[in-house]
Amino acid sequence: MKYDDYLKKYERKTGKSRRLYSRSADIFPGGISHNIRYFEPYPFYVNSAKGKYLRDVDGNRYTDYWMGHWALILGHSPAVVSSALARQVRNGTLYGVVNDVSVKLGEAIQKFMPRAEMMRFCSTGSEATMYAVRLARAKTGRRVIAKAIGGWHGFNTTLMQTVNYPYEVEEGPGLVQDEGQYVESLQFNDLESSLKVLETIKDDLACIIIEPVLGGAGCIPPVAGYLQGLQEFAKKNDVLFILDEIVTGFRLSPNGAASVYGLEPDLFTLGKICGGGLPIGVVCGSKELMSLADPVQRPDKEARCAIGGGTFSANPVTMTAGLATLDFLKKNKGSIYPKISRLGEMARNGLSKIFSDAKIPCRVTGTHSVFLTHFVSDDRSIANATDVATSDKKKLIQYHMALMAEHGMFFLPTKMGAVSYVHEESDIKKLLSATQDIVDSGLFKQT
Amino acid sequence: MKYDDYLKKYERKTGKSRRLYSRSADIFPGGISHNIRYFEPYPFYVNSAKGKYLRDVDGNRYTDYWMGHWALILGHSPAVVSSALARQVRNGTLYGVVNDVSVKLGEAIQKFMPRAEMMRFCSTGSEATMYAVRLARAKTGRRVIAKAIGGWHGFNTTLMQTVNYPYEVEEGPGLVQDEGQYVESLQFNDLESSLKVLETIKDDLACIIIEPVLGGAGCIPPVAGYLQGLQEFAKKNDVLFILDEIVTGFRLSPNGAASVYGLEPDLFTLGKICGGGLPIGVVCGSKELMSLADPVQRPDKEARCAIGGGTFSANPVTMTAGLATLDFLKKNKGSIYPKISRLGEMARNGLSKIFSDAKIPCRVTGTHSVFLTHFVSDDRSIANATDVATSDKKKLIQYHMALMAEHGMFFLPTKMGAVSYVHEESDIKKLLSATQDIVDSGLFKQT
Repeated sequence: MKYDDYLKKYERKTGKSRRLYSRSADIFPGGISHNIRYFEPYPFYVNSAKGKYLRDVDGNRYTDYWMGHWALILGHSPAVVSSALARQVRNGTLYGVVNDVSVKLGEAIQKFMPRAEMMRFCSTGSEATMYAVRLARAKTGRRVIAKAIGGWHGFNTTLMQTVNYPYEVEEGPGLVQDEGQYVESLQFNDLESSLKVLETIKDDLACIIIEPVLGGAGCIPPVAGYLQGLQEFAKKNDVLFILDEIVTGFRLSPNGAASVYGLEPDLFTLGKICGGGLPIGVVCGSKELMSLADPVQRPDKEARCAIGGGTFSANPVTMTAGLATLDFLKKNKGSIYPKISRLGEMARNGLSKIFSDAKIPCRVTGTHSVFLTHFVSDDRSIANATDVATSDKKKLIQYHMALMAEHGMFFLPTKMGAVSYVHEESDIKKLLSATQDIVDSGLFKQT
Repeated sequence: MKYDDYLKKYERKTGKSRRLYSRSADIFPGGISHNIRYFEPYPFYVNSAKGKYLRDVDGNRYTDYWMGHWALILGHSPAVVSSALARQVRNGTLYGVVNDVSVKLGEAIQKFMPRAEMMRFCSTGSEATMYAVRLARAKTGRRVIAKAIGGWHGFNTTLMQTVNYPYEVEEGPGLVQDEGQYVESLQFNDLESSLKVLETIKDDLACIIIEPVLGGAGCIPPVAGYLQGLQEFAKKNDVLFILDEIVTGFRLSPNGAASVYGLEPDLFTLGKICGGGLPIGVVCGSKELMSLADPVQRPDKEARCAIGGGTFSANPVTMTAGLATLDFLKKNKGSIYPKISRLGEMARNGLSKIFSDAKIPCRVTGTHSVFLTHFVSDDRSIANATDVATSDKKKLIQYHMALMAEHGMFFLPTKMGAVSYVHEESDIKKLLSATQDIVDSGLFKQT
């Protein structure tokens, strides 16, 4: 089948979504509230999600591998979370003052991740990373922040740099250049060149902030020694090492990527999974560092690092969803993590074999429960964001559309997929057989 | 009664909160996730909120005038919202893709506020204002942002300037000075001095961003002509006029403060009320301006203003709560707004009289449903943030504590109070009689 055939099939079954998109495009720029949520010809509109399934307004059902920006490790509306939420929403959604559930969630996080000696809850990942680098600047008195090329830490002004290809070009109007002058970018997985860059900026370097596995940039795990090398440089030069675990925390392992890769970050950020499907961001770190933000010990604003929380910080709905999720993870971690990692590996191996047998140059990247395919024109590997950005994205969009249109499987086009606890081996088998079917249909033979 | 007596009374009835605070202080810097939520000797811990009441872990009940940072215009967990939420949480909390409820909420906002030709949903007010000024810089190609002294637009790096007294002092370590160099501050309600400042920076001025009523800085309504004067300057100089209606939108009137004061902002921000008690921020404006962020029309990043939405943007839980709230406001606006404004006025007049009769110098500020008392040492008025900051905050803290400890009424100490639809005339009478009682107890006679 040609891409056009898949597109037509998609359009035929999504008439109500098409009409909703046309209304949306009159309200929201591009019809969406998050740039990555648009895809051609228009996204389908969901009105219900349960377990592994998304259901759209036309009644189509999709097995979901996007899973709420990878946040829903237990699937959509798991009973343990939704029952707790159904009680909580009748009991207050925004107390506006401190509450007991936030204490319990904080303590639950500490048990999984003892390096979270102290933390602050906020409402989004963008806020968490913004506050983490602010704390690093406050601690060190230095200004420069090093991040990875393609590294994604949200839409905050400071870290909205070298996010989209071509990376050497500014990220568009509205971002004042003077605000970007203190951000330097490193080539992920290239320790030698990264250390070279770091060496040139170390005198004014406050921190290195990095995702242990590049997520938004294309599902790229670290090569052995890379993150450790950055951390070593940081420790040696009194630079703070910040691990952005918004995606990997509670996904790669219950103790985060830090435990998987043997890292000891000074600060780290959490989000997604630990909010149980409700808005959350968390900055975590040592008592010494986090205390810089303590308004009780430091009533004088000149002595205090001004980090936020915000109106919705630690709200009881998020706290309740997060606590229910972490409680479930604690009780079932022995079955959850081996299962999702095994299914992730099954997907990676199976997809690699299908494309390799069909002689379609494709790299499958990922680790544990996350994976992504990259169509390449030769036999080169995918080691960093540039490799991903210069791969054949058009083919990837077509593959993801074919899965949606013909097989009822959803990957946000071009984005990493994630296995959640509600996926079964049979789902991965279906994904592989759908992929085989798409290969056989001749989609990838198109020029 | 002396302040110490009230404090002792508070401590006697909040033993469980004291123990929870001690656990909190081991987890969160200062024991809280939002600086303003701490107060002496420790805040009480809420575990349930319904209607006008907060209930703490010790079983104390407080009539709430803080109302979730002023967001809960229908009180805590109103049935129309909590019923809709109880259904939604079993039906998905984070689809991760577009949904039909966001279209309905967007259209509902447009009906109240037609100047919201287009909008983008995000998850917090801090994000909304950050994106608004980014859009202004993108549109104008200029860099400077003018804000009010004491103006509060969230904890984003750009606008975290001149927020806390003394305003001429930097807002603490971690904020890089180069990032603050493009923010200039205006004295609220002083048009002459404001225009003078604006005149000096107009060549590089992108926008003026302002709360129509200073909220966090102390509940200060605009004097006649002030906002209009700023708007006029903006229009004349091709500078964007941004109204931050996160607090005032759907509070001062169903159509916002813009309609009350006859303003026509180029961009405006919403939050709080329109999320129905769940996390939200919204940037609204003309099609022309908002289209700068359109990723479909502007696939090239150099042509597009990169504003976020985030993982949790337009999530179906927030959208559902917001839509239920706005539907209720639409049907009942004829009773809601006159009622809360009348009760607000009753509180302002009653409090003024009590303090005046007792010869305690106190200014009561506010408008419509919001109000705040300011203890002053003379007969000067409260017209800007400096006036508030230099008033007797200690007395205000003591007054608010006395209301909490003895009378079961909650104002977040030193912060503006808000009347919601669930408050009755009898509540305001109780507030006045409690205040009379506190005056009579001799609290304010202390030196």
